[in-house]
Amino acid sequence: VRVEARLVPFPRSISPQARAALANFVNEDGTPFPRARLPAPDDFAGWAQAKEQADAGIMQWIAPRVANSTARVETTQIGGAVVHIATPLEPKRKHSVYLDIHGGGLVYGGGEPCRIGAIVAADLHGVRAFAVDYRMPPEHPYPAALDDCLGAYRGLLELYSPRSIIVGGASAGGNLAAALMLRARAEGLPLPAAVVLNTPELDLTESGDSFGVNQTVDVVLGGGLSEFNSLYANGHDLSHPYLSPLFGDFTKGFPPTFLQTGTRDLFLSNTVRMHRALRKADVPVDLHVFEGMPHGGFFGGPEDCELRAEIAGFVASHWGTGETQDYG
Amino acid sequence: VRVEARLVPFPRSISPQARAALANFVNEDGTPFPRARLPAPDDFAGWAQAKEQADAGIMQWIAPRVANSTARVETTQIGGAVVHIATPLEPKRKHSVYLDIHGGGLVYGGGEPCRIGAIVAADLHGVRAFAVDYRMPPEHPYPAALDDCLGAYRGLLELYSPRSIIVGGASAGGNLAAALMLRARAEGLPLPAAVVLNTPELDLTESGDSFGVNQTVDVVLGGGLSEFNSLYANGHDLSHPYLSPLFGDFTKGFPPTFLQTGTRDLFLSNTVRMHRALRKADVPVDLHVFEGMPHGGFFGGPEDCELRAEIAGFVASHWGTGETQDYG
Repeated sequence: VRVEARLVPFPRSISPQARAALANFVNEDGTPFPRARLPAPDDFAGWAQAKEQADAGIMQWIAPRVANSTARVETTQIGGAVVHIATPLEPKRKHSVYLDIHGGGLVYGGGEPCRIGAIVAADLHGVRAFAVDYRMPPEHPYPAALDDCLGAYRGLLELYSPRSIIVGGASAGGNLAAALMLRARAEGLPLPAAVVLNTPELDLTESGDSFGVNQTVDVVLGGGLSEFNSLYANGHDLSHPYLSPLFGDFTKGFPPTFLQTGTRDLFLSNTVRMHRALRKADVPVDLHVFEGMPHGGFFGGPEDCELRAEIAGFVASHWGTGETQDYG
Repeated sequence: VRVEARLVPFPRSISPQARAALANFVNEDGTPFPRARLPAPDDFAGWAQAKEQADAGIMQWIAPRVANSTARVETTQIGGAVVHIATPLEPKRKHSVYLDIHGGGLVYGGGEPCRIGAIVAADLHGVRAFAVDYRMPPEHPYPAALDDCLGAYRGLLELYSPRSIIVGGASAGGNLAAALMLRARAEGLPLPAAVVLNTPELDLTESGDSFGVNQTVDVVLGGGLSEFNSLYANGHDLSHPYLSPLFGDFTKGFPPTFLQTGTRDLFLSNTVRMHRALRKADVPVDLHVFEGMPHGGFFGGPEDCELRAEIAGFVASHWGTGETQDYG
């Protein structure tokens, strides 16, 4: 379909805060900011610098959310992976645990932002939260990140019943959370009570329709993440279900799933295609699509609060549910 | 956001049949067909001709679906409205009934397509189906159509328990089905067991984001239906909940709702905003968003079958549910 050049206004159907947040991502004439040139795949120093910059940006957004947190955090190793463990001062449930897998294009978001993510999850759900500080490219391409997630999950299974574990991730974290389910199942491990996938990067081949339709309309992701995906895959087939879990076989078992996206999200198609795939496999699944929302939310505003409340409600209603039969 | 002129390909993430169907709606270079000029609001003869053409097009698409139906159809009057009643040869449930409200921009789809709609619904759900052949503009603008739907629904309540009634509509039919719920509730009537809203025209002000983002990308609706909406409203406030039920108060009661749209649907925002509004009012609601689907489905292909199966499953699981307490 031919699309004419035009100015798509930030809609009046979202909150003023959300509208203001969207406007922050583009020039006054609506054109996107020029994208920083990425380092060459083998330019480790360049990537280290790019990560530092990107993570500082993530911290600016995420750090205020835990300013008043009373959760304690410690960093340790579980199953070979670095894991940050945040424990609320007064947990609502002592024997439940949330496993958080951070986002950041499979390249960014490690270290301090990941640590903060553990606190955010612990505060939101009122339980101990483990955040996997998984290894990333260019030093550690696929399957290092997934190996670390699997190691951490396997370690958790020694401490908690699978029915007391809920796994969640946003963006690249949604990729790894979903891939972890497929791989855990293939390795005969029990699955957790539920999984939360927010605006998930489930298809590294970027074959969905929204990669075309929402190009530049998604002010956060712009045109896609293909360079990051190549860096991560390091020659592995992008369409393998461990890299693009959208293409997995969900009839072999997948936990009840929370899916979230927005109408402007470049990953809208990823999310609704996953919804359909899980429906076909008879997996219980909740789909939430937020009006005008780009990848990652509005970075402030009532819609983000609404989303957090939906996630918290889903998680609260799934503790203790899940498989009772033998698995694997 | 500035969107550059470009060709958005029909995605490889949908079925070949769906891709072919989309291509039928545009010129070979991807530009939309020129839109027929609409008659002036007072040109009744012109509108009659436009309706004849449009309805012939609808018939071409809908008639083959009932070619093998064994349902009987009769046409009668209920509560002042013309109603077509289709009865399956062997109903699955003898005391349940589906009330179908046809689409067509609040202007088209009456008469024969409406009658066929009753058969489609009877066959899909295996129950008797009533289809309201509501009056339409230019002769009968708002509130004639809603009056007719209310009359028919009121008549049904004399014949059936509200828990044995499910109401459904697509597009303009979704507008009227949702408005009917609000008006029935305001008039103290019990609500049905459930309501099915497919790609619903819930906002005649067309304020949602997808009216901008999916312009021309939705090859079926193109740029919107504002001329139809004005003709229908005939000077009434387009944002009144009886004209744009999206702006209704759902905390006063609304039945469990099935919502469906597609990522290319001009009414994507209508649908997901309704989902959020119903969630906020604690109304049980299922949301289905189909990949690459424009308004009204793919006009053939496995995705349409999948959608029909979802609707049938939702309806089958809601018979006999609903309000037990006093209402109104």
